[in-house]
Amino acid sequence: MNAPLNLTTDMANALRALAMDAVQKANSGHPGAPMGMAEMAVALWGRHLRVNPADPGWPDRDRFVLSNGHASMLLYALLHLSGHALSMDDLKAFRQLHSRTPGHPEIGITPGVETTTGPLGQGLANAVGMALAEKLLAQAFNRPGHDIVDHRTYVFMGDGCLMEGISQEAISLAGVWGLNKLIALYDDNGISIDGPVQGWFADDTALRFKACGWNVIGTVDGHDVAALDAAITQARSSSERPTLIICKTRIGQGSPKRANTAKAHGEPLGAEEIAATRAAIGWPHAPFEIPETVRNAWDLRTRGAAQQRDWTARLADYRVAHPALAEELERRLSGRRPIHFEDVVFKAITDVALKGETVASRKASQQVLAALGPALPELIGGSADLTGSNLTDFPGCGAVKGGSFEGRHVHYGVREFGMAAAMNGMALHGGFIPYGGTFLTFSDYSRNAIRMAALMKQQVIHVFTHDSIGLGEDGPTHQPVEHAASLRLIPHLDVWRPGDATETAVAWAHALGQRDRPSALLLSRQNLPAQTRTPEQVAEAHRGAYVLSDRAAARAVLIASGSELGLAMTAQQHLDALGVPVRVVSMPSSSVFDRQDARWQQAVLGDARLPRFGVEAGISRFWRQYGCVDALGVDSFGESGPGPSVYAHFGLTVEALVARVQAWLTAAA
Amino acid sequence: MNAPLNLTTDMANALRALAMDAVQKANSGHPGAPMGMAEMAVALWGRHLRVNPADPGWPDRDRFVLSNGHASMLLYALLHLSGHALSMDDLKAFRQLHSRTPGHPEIGITPGVETTTGPLGQGLANAVGMALAEKLLAQAFNRPGHDIVDHRTYVFMGDGCLMEGISQEAISLAGVWGLNKLIALYDDNGISIDGPVQGWFADDTALRFKACGWNVIGTVDGHDVAALDAAITQARSSSERPTLIICKTRIGQGSPKRANTAKAHGEPLGAEEIAATRAAIGWPHAPFEIPETVRNAWDLRTRGAAQQRDWTARLADYRVAHPALAEELERRLSGRRPIHFEDVVFKAITDVALKGETVASRKASQQVLAALGPALPELIGGSADLTGSNLTDFPGCGAVKGGSFEGRHVHYGVREFGMAAAMNGMALHGGFIPYGGTFLTFSDYSRNAIRMAALMKQQVIHVFTHDSIGLGEDGPTHQPVEHAASLRLIPHLDVWRPGDATETAVAWAHALGQRDRPSALLLSRQNLPAQTRTPEQVAEAHRGAYVLSDRAAARAVLIASGSELGLAMTAQQHLDALGVPVRVVSMPSSSVFDRQDARWQQAVLGDARLPRFGVEAGISRFWRQYGCVDALGVDSFGESGPGPSVYAHFGLTVEALVARVQAWLTAAA
Repeated sequence: MNAPLNLTTDMANALRALAMDAVQKANSGHPGAPMGMAEMAVALWGRHLRVNPADPGWPDRDRFVLSNGHASMLLYALLHLSGHALSMDDLKAFRQLHSRTPGHPEIGITPGVETTTGPLGQGLANAVGMALAEKLLAQAFNRPGHDIVDHRTYVFMGDGCLMEGISQEAISLAGVWGLNKLIALYDDNGISIDGPVQGWFADDTALRFKACGWNVIGTVDGHDVAALDAAITQARSSSERPTLIICKTRIGQGSPKRANTAKAHGEPLGAEEIAATRAAIGWPHAPFEIPETVRNAWDLRTRGAAQQRDWTARLADYRVAHPALAEELERRLSGRRPIHFEDVVFKAITDVALKGETVASRKASQQVLAALGPALPELIGGSADLTGSNLTDFPGCGAVKGGSFEGRHVHYGVREFGMAAAMNGMALHGGFIPYGGTFLTFSDYSRNAIRMAALMKQQVIHVFTHDSIGLGEDGPTHQPVEHAASLRLIPHLDVWRPGDATETAVAWAHALGQRDRPSALLLSRQNLPAQTRTPEQVAEAHRGAYVLSDRAAARAVLIASGSELGLAMTAQQHLDALGVPVRVVSMPSSSVFDRQDARWQQAVLGDARLPRFGVEAGISRFWRQYGCVDALGVDSFGESGPGPSVYAHFGLTVEALVARVQAWLTAAA
Repeated sequence: MNAPLNLTTDMANALRALAMDAVQKANSGHPGAPMGMAEMAVALWGRHLRVNPADPGWPDRDRFVLSNGHASMLLYALLHLSGHALSMDDLKAFRQLHSRTPGHPEIGITPGVETTTGPLGQGLANAVGMALAEKLLAQAFNRPGHDIVDHRTYVFMGDGCLMEGISQEAISLAGVWGLNKLIALYDDNGISIDGPVQGWFADDTALRFKACGWNVIGTVDGHDVAALDAAITQARSSSERPTLIICKTRIGQGSPKRANTAKAHGEPLGAEEIAATRAAIGWPHAPFEIPETVRNAWDLRTRGAAQQRDWTARLADYRVAHPALAEELERRLSGRRPIHFEDVVFKAITDVALKGETVASRKASQQVLAALGPALPELIGGSADLTGSNLTDFPGCGAVKGGSFEGRHVHYGVREFGMAAAMNGMALHGGFIPYGGTFLTFSDYSRNAIRMAALMKQQVIHVFTHDSIGLGEDGPTHQPVEHAASLRLIPHLDVWRPGDATETAVAWAHALGQRDRPSALLLSRQNLPAQTRTPEQVAEAHRGAYVLSDRAAARAVLIASGSELGLAMTAQQHLDALGVPVRVVSMPSSSVFDRQDARWQQAVLGDARLPRFGVEAGISRFWRQYGCVDALGVDSFGESGPGPSVYAHFGLTVEALVARVQAWLTAAA
């Protein structure tokens, strides 16, 4: 039941008008892309997208991702007109402080926004993660006659997204995985900020996507709703491959002077051109006024509610046929942990602590996964082609690759950024806690996606192994130096660098408990000796830092993380022998410690008059913020050589730490 | 004059033997890729590559980039056998501390290594930058009958490089630029660390490269030297397009048990399998023993010297025909600045200082470029599709795009990582000082390439504009918060955040003076008031931090950077009125300040008993390392809204700073 032609035109023009008027009112924003994609939006939202404005969290809704997030006004206009809880006043507050219509779409701020976009290319990769999540969830829960998980992921994206390298990682993965329910509409307007793209973007995009196993439709006239509608219908029938629909559009379509120019991209049209556009497109209505007929044509509330009702009825049937599965599916979608899971976690930590094994923390991590993984089916692992090094797999986890969705460990290939952004998409989809591994140095590649997880408050766990010069021979390109300190700067990200197997188990337990934030676990390649702890100390490790070993009348405090914890503990013994009692503080997570109350912080760090010494195989200045008077660290790039020789080269030794403490105490005496 | 067939086989097997034996001796490394690429190396190095082992710095040599840098033993074996200054003892010290044969190839350590590789995909992007540099230099200096700049760039790369997103950015740029003298040989062995790639890498690579405008040859049998030789010959005749040669190889070729398995990738074969391999390939020689005939066949000294002699003779002709050009070319290649350039720099700074304009530092940067650019032709700019925002162009700079090499500003498209790695390649090539712009937030995308420039000691200048919440409406995805502090953690990188136009000029001058390190200039979107300085203070700004405004009997020190310098200066006036004299320290570059002698540092920061307050629109904990007792900053993600309202929201105001200082002094009193 499609709208008649003139109404269809009006539906598109309503989007155009709202976009140009809101940008004008804000005197800031991007009118060109919304105006260019208006018909694409009419075709998709008007005729295909299954969403219920009254319940934007309906689990089986279609997902819509605006990867070219600067076109935010298109999305806000769609959400408003379709009947989501976003008022015209919200649109009028576009880009104002604390409004529900920020400059780029932000999840958690605006009902119906599925992911925060703006950093180009990542929306597409999020969508790939969402589409993978749908496949995995369908594999786990659908049963013959019960396609209870059955929705599509749609993406709008522009030239910028496709120039970004991450787009290649995303489309390559979507192709090899055969994500046929992923449908991407490419706003092929031939203009980017610097002008007509042919001077810097001459890819044959259709061919490129075909090379990656996609079903390619088009070029379609991006201003012909019927053609777009037909293309989407065709895309929905793709049984094995994701679909790209190439939509030839004009940026700023409708604006007599700005259409098809880079000027349409990122600045208001101006009052005069807006008036000219109104005349040209036949839109006589005042700013922010939408005629009732147009508003009714856009309203998705009735359709969406019926779609959700149908699903709810099917869910009821499913619950009868498969009660245990239904219960588990609802648990997964709600984000609740399994009952007794806390007991499993407690047992895992206790087992590790009792075992007291000298083991690399990456290996300890795998042991924890082996204990927790089977009890937590929403945990979906993976590695950027370093599974045997990151040790992110566990017995029986199975592999997700090439169209097989039964496993629980994803082979992402050498695609750190794509992996991280896809993990964000899986977390956003719901039903999963994704984790994935690479070497810590290559967190550089995925850094902005880690940041986006933090900004979006998504539970994503990064397993970064080979966390220091301790990795040895691979040399400075592979040895992180600034990375731990640098990740700790990202707001709302928990960084853990556990000192032995027990702290590794605590780190995992803590990360699994953080429903609204990502965590990064920094793990050693090399073996770490097990430290002895009381049960109380194991509990205290959850607070990010704690006194691991104290001395009466301590004259100094050593603060260590990760692989240097053992070094500090040995230094304490040497200092004991020299008659210099010192306290050792283990700080596996400064992020978590910084959130503790001041009383705890003071109790751990001790009397401010006692000199503090930091020790960590990374940038030493990090420790100054904890009042350290000196720190052993690595303040230049690493060196290739066997790990112990590299440690010695950088003076990260027990002897050096002992000497520093003695020198300071002597000088202060 | 090719070697006979059995000698050709021996040449390849010599590489295999050296690789497997050196890895075995080190008990660490990657034998599989060198063994698989041995014939590719014979074809390229034995028959095509123009290098002179006696002078690895010969400017018109061909460039060879090993993008899959873990195959380092292949390159070391080639350098040794071809006659570079790399001894057999060096090979025996593979992966040992301070050897000339580190785990991954590192420029500056090993003669003949053109770039440091290991982080996958970047070598290819470096090579694109090198090939672009060749085109630009040829355009500038070649004259009819005088092709004085005329060399090729060859790359070896593996599956990992092609999975990384940056490879797409690189090949897209190479294609649109028409870099026909770039020839990439793809080691298509179908194996990555996690196993056979078809489960995670099913791209039709030939089609993908064709989609990006490349000339694609193959699949060629990667173990057939004649076929490879023919393919390279054919590639060399490509007149408009870069060439990909797809070489079907077997990883670990020659090893009976390990060939074609992931186990061949990253661990020693073991004594037994090495013996079996020796038998299988017919290589009876002891480890590190190369028969004289094979050694002679590999020796490139005579051929390379003759090639260079020929070029030197042609350069002499060129010098006669075009003496001024020849002189300029030699200056460019030597890295010397033009005579009187320091005067130009001094005048530019002085002009800006005298002008005293209130202007955004990004705009001031453009003004500096307009003054310096024409006087420094090796300066080659660019932007990742934000030219009008980064203001990286200057009058008359012209544009490099789509096969046009006359301009001096490169349209990189939305490819931050590719841009940064290509800039590294241009710097490595010689003859250029590349700079390029994007928004500071998106330094996340290019972060590892920035790190690589620092590790490689290359002069590359990053222009990062929109450097704080001050950018306003675009919101938290676009507002850097942790980025300034995070970039300052990268060793050997100079980070500048100038406080006004004069400091922006100083930052440019300083960055242009750093021949062996990269710099990042963090510039504001919004206007910044000009500060008044004596000529001595302008000179002092070169030291990274200095006293901008002092007070007798100051009771506190305010330390500010960038856009918060004006805030601190106004706060000083307010505090004056309140009877609280304070010193204002401007710290445009903590990196540079940290390199100053202790006397300067103490003189600037003042008496340690005076409380210090930091102010910067970024993570406030940064300032604790300078002994600040408190700091105004931004410790969570930003907000979308007009810049001033966002500043107010985060409490980054004169009033707040004044209140903090007063509160502290009151509490301390």
